[in-house]
Amino acid sequence: MLCSRPMMPLDTALYIAALVAVAVNASAGVLEAGRRPFDLFGMVVVALAAALGGGSLRDVLLDRTVFWIADQTYLLTAILAGLVTFAVVRVVRLPAKLFLLPDAIGLALFTVSGTQAALSVGAPWLVASLMGVITGVFGGIVRDILCNEVPLVFTGQLYATASWAGALVLVGLMAVGVSAGWAALACGSLVLGLRLAAIVFDWRLPVFVARP
Amino acid sequence: MLCSRPMMPLDTALYIAALVAVAVNASAGVLEAGRRPFDLFGMVVVALAAALGGGSLRDVLLDRTVFWIADQTYLLTAILAGLVTFAVVRVVRLPAKLFLLPDAIGLALFTVSGTQAALSVGAPWLVASLMGVITGVFGGIVRDILCNEVPLVFTGQLYATASWAGALVLVGLMAVGVSAGWAALACGSLVLGLRLAAIVFDWRLPVFVARP
Amino acid sequence: MLCSRPMMPLDTALYIAALVAVAVNASAGVLEAGRRPFDLFGMVVVALAAALGGGSLRDVLLDRTVFWIADQTYLLTAILAGLVTFAVVRVVRLPAKLFLLPDAIGLALFTVSGTQAALSVGAPWLVASLMGVITGVFGGIVRDILCNEVPLVFTGQLYATASWAGALVLVGLMAVGVSAGWAALACGSLVLGLRLAAIVFDWRLPVFVARP
Repeated sequence: MLCSRPMMPLDTALYIAALVAVAVNASAGVLEAGRRPFDLFGMVVVALAAALGGGSLRDVLLDRTVFWIADQTYLLTAILAGLVTFAVVRVVRLPAKLFLLPDAIGLALFTVSGTQAALSVGAPWLVASLMGVITGVFGGIVRDILCNEVPLVFTGQLYATASWAGALVLVGLMAVGVSAGWAALACGSLVLGLRLAAIVFDWRLPVFVARP
Repeated sequence: MLCSRPMMPLDTALYIAALVAVAVNASAGVLEAGRRPFDLFGMVVVALAAALGGGSLRDVLLDRTVFWIADQTYLLTAILAGLVTFAVVRVVRLPAKLFLLPDAIGLALFTVSGTQAALSVGAPWLVASLMGVITGVFGGIVRDILCNEVPLVFTGQLYATASWAGALVLVGLMAVGVSAGWAALACGSLVLGLRLAAIVFDWRLPVFVARP
Repeated sequence: MLCSRPMMPLDTALYIAALVAVAVNASAGVLEAGRRPFDLFGMVVVALAAALGGGSLRDVLLDRTVFWIADQTYLLTAILAGLVTFAVVRVVRLPAKLFLLPDAIGLALFTVSGTQAALSVGAPWLVASLMGVITGVFGGIVRDILCNEVPLVFTGQLYATASWAGALVLVGLMAVGVSAGWAALACGSLVLGLRLAAIVFDWRLPVFVARP
């Protein structure tokens, strides 16, 4: 049951971090779905898709057991977070910006866990970094497709780019022998810092519009 | 080839029921796609997605062999049902409500087969019940996304909720030792009854619209 | 490493053909995404989805290792083709029709490789032919969904139909003992010829619109 001693705190920390990321993404899904006349079930589905979609796609592509099937704590966390958000928002008006910070933390955590999961099954470096990005952003893409909108991640401030930069740093650090814990810390800090800076300074990628 | 004697009729009944559900959902997909200027192929794709999408997602998530790849009878059934519907609707005008009854039967059958398939590979109770719901409703969600619409299941009368209630009853009955056949009957009857009652009495879940 | 001598040139040719098809589809994805105000990342995602989506769905459904995870050359090819297209189109105005020929070649190549991949894992004939179609057209469907549009493949000139016809010919020829190389050539030529003829002569499937 136990890994070797030095890994335990990291494993536990990553597990709790992943649960927090799931809860935060579920909440963000409910807030997004709330702009449509969805019923309670529709919102739970959007919350689940937003919270679990990225990790599910990663696990299916890597042919691992899907994480929330192996451990239904994730599923319960996502459903509870969605219902609590639903209940709270009916009573209290929350400023939309309130969720930018936990959402950025969720992006950082999902990027770390997605990249490490891919490396642990022997994926090559470019695939591993892309799995980090998929884990971080795919849930939000599905959320927006279910709401029949162009995915926000394609048009807004740096988001996936922050995730990809962090994932590449994690892959690079581990390739040169840095321990998993420090590599995770560096990756997560970079993603979080880049994303928050992008929000504050309105950093965006160049936009491409074809000439008509 | 043969299971033990007492299971045979149940297995056979569930197999025929699943084929009927596939056919009904394919027909419903064609009727939905018919509101868009799709060509014949587009309609076959929507019919296949509506009929096979839920079970495919369930099987991919559970890492089982996808059911219509293991047995292409399902695929043939879906294609034939789609083509027949296409041919019939060009000649006869069918009232839209005609499909509500078979669609409800399909929902009940898919919920039973999806939940039992998940239990048979050892999925925990919450995951198993969710697989029943996914099998029942995901096809319709894909159908609506392909038609570029907000999924109907998120906004209409009780649908997924009926499926989830039935799936939870099935999981609970089997946990307390009720045989698979009776549990399936109770689950299917509950889903069918709830769905039909929801249509007749216009039962809906509370709708959530965030304040602007 | 080496297969038996007579297969080597065919394998090498199919590998190069698949890389070309991936590059062409990535380019087509960028050109499509360019009609929306996507940023650079959004375009890379659409390019990857268009280029790799069909083969990924095929591999997940068949429970094979996803091709671009097993060999990340595909992934690099798709990213490079997307970036080069992005750079070129910002400078030079390309006529949209320029991409119809390579796109048709890509459809033919993907149909061949998808059908043969399915046959190689023992899929039955109808499933195998459908896998060829999925490999050929699913990337374009995902591309259009990400761009929040009704998939073009459902409404335009013969496209998936050409793919399906070729896939059925390939399955049929191999069933009667024709070698893989000749069957691939016949299949690819048929798909390419049908698709080009459909563009030139505006061949379309009957469109179905339900009476209101």
